[in-house]
Amino acid sequence: MTEEDAPTGLRERKKRATRAALAEAAVRLAAEHGAEHVTVEAISDAVGVSPRTFFNYFDTRDDAFVMIDSEVGRRLRAAVLGAPEPVAPLDAVRDAIVAELADVEARHDMWALRAQVLRGAPHLLVRSMGAHMADELEMAGAIAERLGTPADAERLGLYPRLLAAVAGTAVRVSVEHWSAAGPGADDLPAVFRAAFAHLAAGLPTPPPGA
Amino acid sequence: MTEEDAPTGLRERKKRATRAALAEAAVRLAAEHGAEHVTVEAISDAVGVSPRTFFNYFDTRDDAFVMIDSEVGRRLRAAVLGAPEPVAPLDAVRDAIVAELADVEARHDMWALRAQVLRGAPHLLVRSMGAHMADELEMAGAIAERLGTPADAERLGLYPRLLAAVAGTAVRVSVEHWSAAGPGADDLPAVFRAAFAHLAAGLPTPPPGA
Repeated sequence: MTEEDAPTGLRERKKRATRAALAEAAVRLAAEHGAEHVTVEAISDAVGVSPRTFFNYFDTRDDAFVMIDSEVGRRLRAAVLGAPEPVAPLDAVRDAIVAELADVEARHDMWALRAQVLRGAPHLLVRSMGAHMADELEMAGAIAERLGTPADAERLGLYPRLLAAVAGTAVRVSVEHWSAAGPGADDLPAVFRAAFAHLAAGLPTPPPGA
Repeated sequence: MTEEDAPTGLRERKKRATRAALAEAAVRLAAEHGAEHVTVEAISDAVGVSPRTFFNYFDTRDDAFVMIDSEVGRRLRAAVLGAPEPVAPLDAVRDAIVAELADVEARHDMWALRAQVLRGAPHLLVRSMGAHMADELEMAGAIAERLGTPADAERLGLYPRLLAAVAGTAVRVSVEHWSAAGPGADDLPAVFRAAFAHLAAGLPTPPPGA
């Protein structure tokens, strides 16, 4: 196995650390100075890399503020397609997402700061929404491929579209609920699993106290 | 019964027609000239009413472009709270939304034009998102109230939040699927009912061809 083939190897971990450091520096600088006043040079300087290195990780400066990470989408789709045959699509999607949630939980302050930066710069919010919609469509394609149904955007069935969108909604609602609940409550993966349990059951009336 | 009490009476229908005409004029003018060049006077003139009348229907000019209609949210919440006792929350939410979908279907061209205007004016998109999130939170509150659980945003349970958000997602996905399918396919309420049938069943693997 070469380094290219080892997604969880040292090289991959170092790449993820550099990408996270660049995004964190971008968001902190934008929160302090306003996104429009932050240059690629300033972001790169803060992390101790060259602007050329910055562009190995992000296509544009704005992608760093938005924390668009195409690797996450790639990992999610690979996990959905790679889940063993008997696993139901809903469970395959849930397990793929749970594997990414630890990262969200560890970087909660950073996501809150990013939300603040995006509220102050509508074009970044639009960019973030666009990336989110593209991810959703690709996830729908992966679900369709798993089911053996057409995976292109024009011929996608209602079910793959719906499952991909509802999974994204479950992530958002779980983060909101977990953030509102504060310290001492369930951790984020537990909230997310509870949300998927509601979905798998068909969203019936919950028992009192649930 | 006074006119105030008669939500489906003539007065209410006339109000809805005037509001729809103002929103349609606003969106058409914005699509032609750019939202920032369209005045309240121009919108009012196009419909043959005074600017004072415009402000009986919209708090700001931008609300007309975004077609924010707090009456729709009010009707949805009243329908969810008013559904008979044995109706499950998921079904109450579905039936409340189906009653509003005929209007979306009839005005499909207008929604497409509105999407185009919003893409060209990020601050309007942000405003639209904000209104959507507020509606979702109020719907979650109505679901919680129906269940007899805390309905304020701070103490909302996971289930009411999730059901409200998933219902909104089902509307969006249904509109996307219906728009992509083109003429001759199922009408929008039929697509939406199919989406809710997937949800009520717990999103199981659909049979081949579904």
